[in-house]
Amino acid sequence: MIVVMDGKSNEDDIRKISEKLKDMKFDLQIIKGSNKVVIGIIGDTRKLSNFPFNSYPGVIDVLRVLKPYKLASKEFRELPTIIKINDVAIGGKEVVLMAGPCAVEGEEQIYETAQMVSKSGVKVLRGGAYKPRTSPYSFQGLGIKGLKFMSEAAKKYGLLVITEVMSIEQIGIIEPFADIFQVGARNMQNFMLLKELGKTRKPVMLKRGMSSTIEELLLSAEYIMSGGNKKVILCERGIRTFENYTRNTLDLSAVPAIKVLSHLPIIVDPSHATGRKELVGPMSKAAIAAGADGLIIEVHPKPEASASDGAQSLDFDNFENLVSEVEQVAKAVNRTLDHSYVSV
Amino acid sequence: MIVVMDGKSNEDDIRKISEKLKDMKFDLQIIKGSNKVVIGIIGDTRKLSNFPFNSYPGVIDVLRVLKPYKLASKEFRELPTIIKINDVAIGGKEVVLMAGPCAVEGEEQIYETAQMVSKSGVKVLRGGAYKPRTSPYSFQGLGIKGLKFMSEAAKKYGLLVITEVMSIEQIGIIEPFADIFQVGARNMQNFMLLKELGKTRKPVMLKRGMSSTIEELLLSAEYIMSGGNKKVILCERGIRTFENYTRNTLDLSAVPAIKVLSHLPIIVDPSHATGRKELVGPMSKAAIAAGADGLIIEVHPKPEASASDGAQSLDFDNFENLVSEVEQVAKAVNRTLDHSYVSV
Amino acid sequence: MIVVMDGKSNEDDIRKISEKLKDMKFDLQIIKGSNKVVIGIIGDTRKLSNFPFNSYPGVIDVLRVLKPYKLASKEFRELPTIIKINDVAIGGKEVVLMAGPCAVEGEEQIYETAQMVSKSGVKVLRGGAYKPRTSPYSFQGLGIKGLKFMSEAAKKYGLLVITEVMSIEQIGIIEPFADIFQVGARNMQNFMLLKELGKTRKPVMLKRGMSSTIEELLLSAEYIMSGGNKKVILCERGIRTFENYTRNTLDLSAVPAIKVLSHLPIIVDPSHATGRKELVGPMSKAAIAAGADGLIIEVHPKPEASASDGAQSLDFDNFENLVSEVEQVAKAVNRTLDHSYVSV
Amino acid sequence: MIVVMDGKSNEDDIRKISEKLKDMKFDLQIIKGSNKVVIGIIGDTRKLSNFPFNSYPGVIDVLRVLKPYKLASKEFRELPTIIKINDVAIGGKEVVLMAGPCAVEGEEQIYETAQMVSKSGVKVLRGGAYKPRTSPYSFQGLGIKGLKFMSEAAKKYGLLVITEVMSIEQIGIIEPFADIFQVGARNMQNFMLLKELGKTRKPVMLKRGMSSTIEELLLSAEYIMSGGNKKVILCERGIRTFENYTRNTLDLSAVPAIKVLSHLPIIVDPSHATGRKELVGPMSKAAIAAGADGLIIEVHPKPEASASDGAQSLDFDNFENLVSEVEQVAKAVNRTLDHSYVSV
Repeated sequence: MIVVMDGKSNEDDIRKISEKLKDMKFDLQIIKGSNKVVIGIIGDTRKLSNFPFNSYPGVIDVLRVLKPYKLASKEFRELPTIIKINDVAIGGKEVVLMAGPCAVEGEEQIYETAQMVSKSGVKVLRGGAYKPRTSPYSFQGLGIKGLKFMSEAAKKYGLLVITEVMSIEQIGIIEPFADIFQVGARNMQNFMLLKELGKTRKPVMLKRGMSSTIEELLLSAEYIMSGGNKKVILCERGIRTFENYTRNTLDLSAVPAIKVLSHLPIIVDPSHATGRKELVGPMSKAAIAAGADGLIIEVHPKPEASASDGAQSLDFDNFENLVSEVEQVAKAVNRTLDHSYVSV
Repeated sequence: MIVVMDGKSNEDDIRKISEKLKDMKFDLQIIKGSNKVVIGIIGDTRKLSNFPFNSYPGVIDVLRVLKPYKLASKEFRELPTIIKINDVAIGGKEVVLMAGPCAVEGEEQIYETAQMVSKSGVKVLRGGAYKPRTSPYSFQGLGIKGLKFMSEAAKKYGLLVITEVMSIEQIGIIEPFADIFQVGARNMQNFMLLKELGKTRKPVMLKRGMSSTIEELLLSAEYIMSGGNKKVILCERGIRTFENYTRNTLDLSAVPAIKVLSHLPIIVDPSHATGRKELVGPMSKAAIAAGADGLIIEVHPKPEASASDGAQSLDFDNFENLVSEVEQVAKAVNRTLDHSYVSV
Repeated sequence: MIVVMDGKSNEDDIRKISEKLKDMKFDLQIIKGSNKVVIGIIGDTRKLSNFPFNSYPGVIDVLRVLKPYKLASKEFRELPTIIKINDVAIGGKEVVLMAGPCAVEGEEQIYETAQMVSKSGVKVLRGGAYKPRTSPYSFQGLGIKGLKFMSEAAKKYGLLVITEVMSIEQIGIIEPFADIFQVGARNMQNFMLLKELGKTRKPVMLKRGMSSTIEELLLSAEYIMSGGNKKVILCERGIRTFENYTRNTLDLSAVPAIKVLSHLPIIVDPSHATGRKELVGPMSKAAIAAGADGLIIEVHPKPEASASDGAQSLDFDNFENLVSEVEQVAKAVNRTLDHSYVSV
Repeated sequence: MIVVMDGKSNEDDIRKISEKLKDMKFDLQIIKGSNKVVIGIIGDTRKLSNFPFNSYPGVIDVLRVLKPYKLASKEFRELPTIIKINDVAIGGKEVVLMAGPCAVEGEEQIYETAQMVSKSGVKVLRGGAYKPRTSPYSFQGLGIKGLKFMSEAAKKYGLLVITEVMSIEQIGIIEPFADIFQVGARNMQNFMLLKELGKTRKPVMLKRGMSSTIEELLLSAEYIMSGGNKKVILCERGIRTFENYTRNTLDLSAVPAIKVLSHLPIIVDPSHATGRKELVGPMSKAAIAAGADGLIIEVHPKPEASASDGAQSLDFDNFENLVSEVEQVAKAVNRTLDHSYVSV
């Protein structure tokens, strides 16, 4: 960590902050430049994350050298983390497909979807039982009934289940039905929820908040990991910008960036990011080309009858096309996509 | 609500969507333009918030005419809502000051602060007992001990208490100690928490999310209000942009915009928004000039010793100056600021 | 175009605006809803782009149905525009590579680069002779000397030349040396420059401004096209967001979006967008997978000795790897990349 | 300037970069921390603005300590710059009002406006003769005819003239008619234009680009100043964010931030920033409370008949109210507003 002080700082100013830092057992090295004084702080400066540097006279700026997260960092673990659930491995050579409706709307809808997507190489069935809706007047999900439908449909067609958890109380309700907890973008910094998920043993897919930096996403992963649960899957789902043709701006650079900074797997959600079904195919291929470990895509037997997010849901035909196109791109970047029929 | 269809849409396309909407008891009016077909939908179109328009062939765009929130809207209630707690009225002619440390750090710190701010006309003592921190390694607050210190200090100096609630379980813990619940920016769309707060009877100050629109802020208020609790105070605390000199970009236009759209009171937080103590004074004055109903400001007896956010905390002398300057601006816009000593 | 008026508007308000519009020879259709009055305006509403709707009493909102650009739109021309320069076709089946240094720094540097990139299948040599630099104290380019070096090097190795034009006076200077004019992000809305380029006959590659929407990019293309020059190539090079790990956020969704909205070719610049050489490879592959018609990439014989933007420049080895990886992805999406040695 | 290297960097890596820097006559101080190696570079590091640090092995990050601009900085000149034009002083105790229509539309319109605003204490008449319009099909201004009308109207009512210059060729055309050149947001980084304006002797008001940081605004000012023209007035006019209720987000924090960083005067444009006439009043008051040196406001005799930007233009009655309200706020922050009738 580096503290930059005004060049006009006197000995007294420099001593004041130096002594405080020495008291905290840090080694210091002081550089007096022509215009500025620079103090290099040596030691585990993560302890200084709340230190009120700017309240000391003469301090102009503080430059962090060490990353603020640890367990999620590449420095901590160089090899990629591969999360295995039954015979599915997330973060390995195979690209993993997750698909399903935005919300579970009924038994027939989810069975039909599960059957279809299982034939296209999908390994994980997605579907919301509890829906975070911007408006209190929107459909809020079927709750436990939805969880049951989805869990049974998934079992029948040999799929895993991923579903969103929105509060601490829901953890216990969802756990028996789901293989992967999903934390939505709006809850990425719901730290109480993250802490509780750190105590569970099931994998957690953590979606990036709409205005969160990559660093903050990794810090939120750190919350779960520091609680004891190392099975964190990251998910890029678009950030908010001034562009309004797409619902959000899918930040695909986050994929290779996360591969540089972290060992955790990263999934891309092109459906929510774009909000337009005609863009889901191209962005799915782009995500895999950028190095994503998988995709989570909205599919609905009848998009025009869906209770939410119909604008971005693919029907079965479009989804099947997408999978075969994605498979070509996966091969081109030395990844595989197991497109064979899975079970039953 | 208005549906825009491609001019090349045939009768069949138009009939398909029209019949569905007529089934839902809407009146329709169809305009065939030179390049587009436009369908005007008449009725309470809030019911259509999830209708999958874009899945119908020919549909290009959907334009909403009605606001998606109701109880929070100016149309619902024309007169400003004034929230009265004991002898403090938020949303009336008087500008209300809330001040205190970012986090309660100890008994002495909070008593000293309470005493000082009460002399400067502050009516509400702020202070975090549970802190939402980006990093799991940062100071997370004193918890219930902090609540007790703050509550007793406030009582002694005739102040109300506002403090942040981060999860449903904390509601019951905090309620006996606080006069106003604060929902932080990161929880603005923690809908489960909002719903629970809708069942309480204490006022809730709802901070705008870092990437939330004004409309979404009002929709989150609607969650609390539709649950039965009408006492919602809004708070602008800065949004995320590319500018990095300030921590966030304080969107003061939101103040008069909310006065146009809603009847709810709006408070401004210049401390978190700017992250720089030298900007807190000017932005406080600007907020009041723009029409804010109050300010929430970080004050600390010794900013250089604070456990968090020292960079933006004012010391007592600076705070006293700020209050007297703000008072001048308040008068200039026909507001009052009760700067007299309140009690003991 | 649709005008939304307050439901409380009286006949007088409605008549006032209606008559004005009828005077302008528009057909109107008026829908009186429960809460709002809606006026549909039929005709070429592009003429109304400056009509002061909001100054009429009762008007709440104005919803545009027609796109504001015409020549650049898919409606105007359904087939993709293919721009042919000598034996290079931009916008066709072949993915076109443009590469070279950020700035021309000397004769040796540009010859070395031209030779190398020509062997890797690059068709267009890039390099700045006039550099738009944020700081007046930064290297501003070699000017006409740079143009000569680049033009001769390109000729020797069978390459086309693309270089940036920053002002009207430079058009005449650059024209003899360049095959494609480049308009940089900072000049995307330098409308005087766009108008002048509309009078030239050489292709123009128009980079998206850092805070410009896709629609505005197409409107800037319209400036050039309406002046008579139809040969416009669009370029996505990253937009500004709060994320700061990358220099900008590469908005790859813009690629398929532009393919939906326009017939013009679209090139992606992953070097400027990310500002980090380790991200250039993955984002190049992603761009092609998303449907881009080509790439423009910074390459430098010795990045560590470059006068500008060394952080994002690839050396020759890395570039060669990139090309062969991109070629695999191109094939996977049914595009070709002519990787053979071109000429001497 | 500080270079951060990987802690695993070997002596060779460190020597490589160190020797290069020593060759350039910099003094170095090297700190070997537990995880990183840090090199402090002492000297005028502005020369290193293009140094390709990241191309050296082991280099992770580069931290700038010195500000990249000089003439515009507070360090260069501590006292505020006051720009005097005839008897008007911009940057002094008096708040300066600039007002007028978006575009000069005709003789009568500009005379009527000049007469009216001169009575309300306005000192500078604004009005566009050349208009930068997003669409080539929008009204582009009256050109030289507009300049003449405006100049004569201003003379008659004792006002100064400010008008936008969009290209180098327009400088000579506009100079005889204008007292202040305005550079619009879209041209803030039109560096060729800035350089030419650096050679003129009339003041230049430089508007902040829609996605420009405060630092970049100051660097653009530096372009003009380093060319020899020190009379630069800055203008905050809103930046682009995801919020869409307002046209842009007025970043009022930029006002006190610029007062900390620079000695140049700063004007606020609430009309373009908000795009809504009902927000212009509150944001004008807020701007003055935040410390702005003046306002530039759109006024039109008949907003509903204006050729552009009617939605944000005030009529005369509203403008007069605004001025008297702003005057109260100006007094409250110890500024004056000369509201008396100026001349004929």
